[in-house]
Amino acid sequence: MMETHFRSAVCGEVNENKVGQTVKLAGWADSRRDLGGVIFVDLRDRSGKVQVVFNEKIVGSEFPIAEKIRDEYVLNVEGVVQERTPETVNPKMETGKVEVMVNHITILDTSATPPIYVKDDDKSGENVRLKYRYLDLRKPKNQKILMTRAKVASIVRNYLNEHGFCEIETPVLGKTTPEGARDFLVPSRVQKGKFFGLPQSPQLFKQILMISGMDRYYQLAKCFRDEDLRQDRQPEFTQIDMEMSFVTKDDILPIMEEMIAKIFKEVRGIELERPFLRMTWREAMDRFGSDKPDMRFGLELNDLSDILKDSSFNVFSDAIKRGGSVRAIIAKDAQGKLSKKALKNLEKYAKIYKAKGLAWIDVKDDESQMKTPILKFISEEEKQAIYDRLGAEEGDYIFMVADTDQIACTAMGQLRLELARRLKIDVSNQFKFLWVIDFPLLEYDEEQGRYVAVHHPFTAPLDEDIPLLETAPEKVRSDAYDMVVNGVELGGGSIRIHNGDIQEKMFKALNLSEETVQTQFGFLMEALKYGTPPHGGLAFGFDRLIMMLMDIDNIRDVIAFPKTQNHSDLMTEAPADAGLDQLIDLGISVDEDIV
Amino acid sequence: MMETHFRSAVCGEVNENKVGQTVKLAGWADSRRDLGGVIFVDLRDRSGKVQVVFNEKIVGSEFPIAEKIRDEYVLNVEGVVQERTPETVNPKMETGKVEVMVNHITILDTSATPPIYVKDDDKSGENVRLKYRYLDLRKPKNQKILMTRAKVASIVRNYLNEHGFCEIETPVLGKTTPEGARDFLVPSRVQKGKFFGLPQSPQLFKQILMISGMDRYYQLAKCFRDEDLRQDRQPEFTQIDMEMSFVTKDDILPIMEEMIAKIFKEVRGIELERPFLRMTWREAMDRFGSDKPDMRFGLELNDLSDILKDSSFNVFSDAIKRGGSVRAIIAKDAQGKLSKKALKNLEKYAKIYKAKGLAWIDVKDDESQMKTPILKFISEEEKQAIYDRLGAEEGDYIFMVADTDQIACTAMGQLRLELARRLKIDVSNQFKFLWVIDFPLLEYDEEQGRYVAVHHPFTAPLDEDIPLLETAPEKVRSDAYDMVVNGVELGGGSIRIHNGDIQEKMFKALNLSEETVQTQFGFLMEALKYGTPPHGGLAFGFDRLIMMLMDIDNIRDVIAFPKTQNHSDLMTEAPADAGLDQLIDLGISVDEDIV
Repeated sequence: MMETHFRSAVCGEVNENKVGQTVKLAGWADSRRDLGGVIFVDLRDRSGKVQVVFNEKIVGSEFPIAEKIRDEYVLNVEGVVQERTPETVNPKMETGKVEVMVNHITILDTSATPPIYVKDDDKSGENVRLKYRYLDLRKPKNQKILMTRAKVASIVRNYLNEHGFCEIETPVLGKTTPEGARDFLVPSRVQKGKFFGLPQSPQLFKQILMISGMDRYYQLAKCFRDEDLRQDRQPEFTQIDMEMSFVTKDDILPIMEEMIAKIFKEVRGIELERPFLRMTWREAMDRFGSDKPDMRFGLELNDLSDILKDSSFNVFSDAIKRGGSVRAIIAKDAQGKLSKKALKNLEKYAKIYKAKGLAWIDVKDDESQMKTPILKFISEEEKQAIYDRLGAEEGDYIFMVADTDQIACTAMGQLRLELARRLKIDVSNQFKFLWVIDFPLLEYDEEQGRYVAVHHPFTAPLDEDIPLLETAPEKVRSDAYDMVVNGVELGGGSIRIHNGDIQEKMFKALNLSEETVQTQFGFLMEALKYGTPPHGGLAFGFDRLIMMLMDIDNIRDVIAFPKTQNHSDLMTEAPADAGLDQLIDLGISVDEDIV
Repeated sequence: MMETHFRSAVCGEVNENKVGQTVKLAGWADSRRDLGGVIFVDLRDRSGKVQVVFNEKIVGSEFPIAEKIRDEYVLNVEGVVQERTPETVNPKMETGKVEVMVNHITILDTSATPPIYVKDDDKSGENVRLKYRYLDLRKPKNQKILMTRAKVASIVRNYLNEHGFCEIETPVLGKTTPEGARDFLVPSRVQKGKFFGLPQSPQLFKQILMISGMDRYYQLAKCFRDEDLRQDRQPEFTQIDMEMSFVTKDDILPIMEEMIAKIFKEVRGIELERPFLRMTWREAMDRFGSDKPDMRFGLELNDLSDILKDSSFNVFSDAIKRGGSVRAIIAKDAQGKLSKKALKNLEKYAKIYKAKGLAWIDVKDDESQMKTPILKFISEEEKQAIYDRLGAEEGDYIFMVADTDQIACTAMGQLRLELARRLKIDVSNQFKFLWVIDFPLLEYDEEQGRYVAVHHPFTAPLDEDIPLLETAPEKVRSDAYDMVVNGVELGGGSIRIHNGDIQEKMFKALNLSEETVQTQFGFLMEALKYGTPPHGGLAFGFDRLIMMLMDIDNIRDVIAFPKTQNHSDLMTEAPADAGLDQLIDLGISVDEDIV
């Protein structure tokens, strides 16, 4: 399949079965050992490496060519595959039982000394690796990432094709929308003074495709967000984006589970248990203090509010009386594993997430326990009720935060993750999938002084909550769902509003002016007049999926040509200055205080 | 596969095999006939249509719901499939032998009266169709286009995956390059005053991927060109883009032929003859006056220069003496088919392509032929030599142009196409594929006063022509190849320069300053230092391929959400005004004379 004018086989395939055969190979010189009269080179291509041998007695007049070979030279060799002598077998190489005794050698291209070490254990800094990305990508581990990425794309596409999804390309030159993250803008030359926006997602187009009767759509879509980058974000990223008509959540979720299971099976050889657990957002917050619970370990949250609501300790009882709660985690048998300093640091950690403090109890049977400050403030009955509730035993720690529900849950949720790290709970090789469902539809944004959509304004409310849209918007649950694995949101979606009247109510709940609605979503409101099927969909973060599959922490490692935190491509040196003539053509200027 | 909560089958599948079964269907009301007490509706989804019947006696209390149905209402019905009576069978419908007697009906959504007629024979203007694209896309023929497009994408991907190509995404936010067509620019917010360019093609990235050792790459890549639109162009379009390492042209061409043959087989059921003919650019110009010859018919060009070089008719002999030629086409038996007025129009047509005039002879056996003006000027021997060369007989027309080779060939090439149209030569249902090879590498650009690349500056010269790069650049042939079918260039590519020295010579031949080379292509020149494999590739116009496969003339018909000639998306009303805050964020202003 890979044979060409330059090769009869690829390096990684040259094994015992080929002994005695003449092969023609092409690739890069990966390492070179000159023993005088005999030169050994590991020849590398995408498929792997094989040792090729230049023996002066065999390669004859071409031996001086072999002497010129240096690392990363591109070679074309022809020779005979032979078994290595037992003492020279290299068990670390897949082709380590054989070598190729070369008859003919051509140097196809030379190489200067590479500025990075072209091996998996290279320790070069990321900036130099990105500047010389073409050398970085020669490392087997990086080639494997890109090949796995391609394999997953192929599994996804074939799966969705088989399930009646139609791959449809939506525009990259789109409409700029002020809602949500910042758009990248593209000035129009033909309509000077106007701008396209690069899509943050194909959300409206995919809904329009459902209104178009396309029934099932998907796309591996490039999306763009002009954000200040965190470790796990890129200005352009890829989504597995899909939408289905005539469905409820119960139609969508199993299809998506099966797809993800197929990917994990084919790439990791892991059988995922299905159906995935479904958990309401409320339960996820109550038990894990997170809308993306990491279920690889326990340390679940407990609500102690009923026990402590009348406590004489005002920090607890006041928080509860104001409508908040006291949330606790018991860390079994943790006393030997967390120093006093660690406890202090845990409190600091909880405070990052807005907790005012962190109360803790070291459960002991003797009097020394009474040194725990908190125990001075709560009654013996309260203590006992807490112990009973949590099943506390000597050697355990109990941690507590009293605050609004939101803060108490979130801070304890974060504390839970930090505890797991500090207790070194083994979470390796586990994939705990679940769906989080029934999210709040809206949340109040203090800054804007209005409700904003937790997902986006096209998410359908649960049918039974529709009446609350006008009376108690904060209580409305959405028919949204996130697929979560190991504390990471892998994808999310919802059933969409397919009725113009409800969409209008939603815009009203968001307090959007009619003008804003008309300018931004006028075409959707118009489209909703002409017969819209019930529909819903989902998008997976493709980059994140690859990271999860391959245990990779840095999103830049799963993208062929990533950008740095300041949006630079260090290899091509983009972004760059534009020509004045280009700007004049577009009718724009760079503001003077920048130049 | 398509079953959901709302349906047990899709409309197009409800046939004789389902008679007696209860089915649940969902779709759009496509037409409605109320016979009083019985209402017939064609229910439509992506798969097709089926007639559903609401009989007051059967649907009972739900009949008033059925009475409300209007066109494009979204319905959910449950009923029993039954055979139609013989006299009501509709042979035009695939499901025309059956109908569904409805028990239950739900209106899922209503519809206002659509502004276009949602049928294949709708005659609405293109602008209203694009504004209501979601209604336009409900037409079966348009859904078929998008589904075929998806099918071809799937064939391409599976084929390339099987042949060792790795799908890799290259950046959309790229580097702006001043060569070639105009870039779309994207102002950077993080690096104010700088700009990304949207890629016109992933050319340099795919070469970098070969230098990275990825061996075989492909991508269905979105590409962008900020041009004034012709009928067959869009500001964003899709390329099937690929590149291979360790190959010559003889490796690449058969793989691409097989892929295209597979597509034509699976979509059109046509077996293409392989291998495709290969024709040098020179031969294509000499025989067809075009670098993309339409080989569905003859009317080939002939060079009469040897016969006419000493003619006393100076228009001919002077052109030849200046290094040009006289090119002729014989249109057999055409005298009855072309009026005197048509001949005049043909001359006008040739003049569009810079011919100074068009000479013609109506071949007759009698004296009346002497009315042909041209015959007064050439000798009897010259006439006879021309007749012998062309095999002229009574009833034929001979057309001639004398000019530089370039103008004479091009004008006659265009005349050839026009003649075929006027002579109504049947070209239907033929696909005549060929490769045009050995293009000129460079052409002199009078305006810029320098040579420019015919393809792009990374195209390799033929090995044997490399010495000419410095001495006679216009004579250098490139190792480029275009796949041509029926006069349309479907794709093109080349073997690339893989050696830094030759790349430098190329930039010199193009008279690019060192600074320009450094700024624009510095990273490529740097990459070429570290061991580059011989490589080459190709890109097909995906939109154009679909047009060719489906006999569609308008590129907008094969794109889900196309833009108009002034780059507008009429549905979303993009491009649009940007907010002042967005522009301030980006550090740019719209020039005042525009506002």
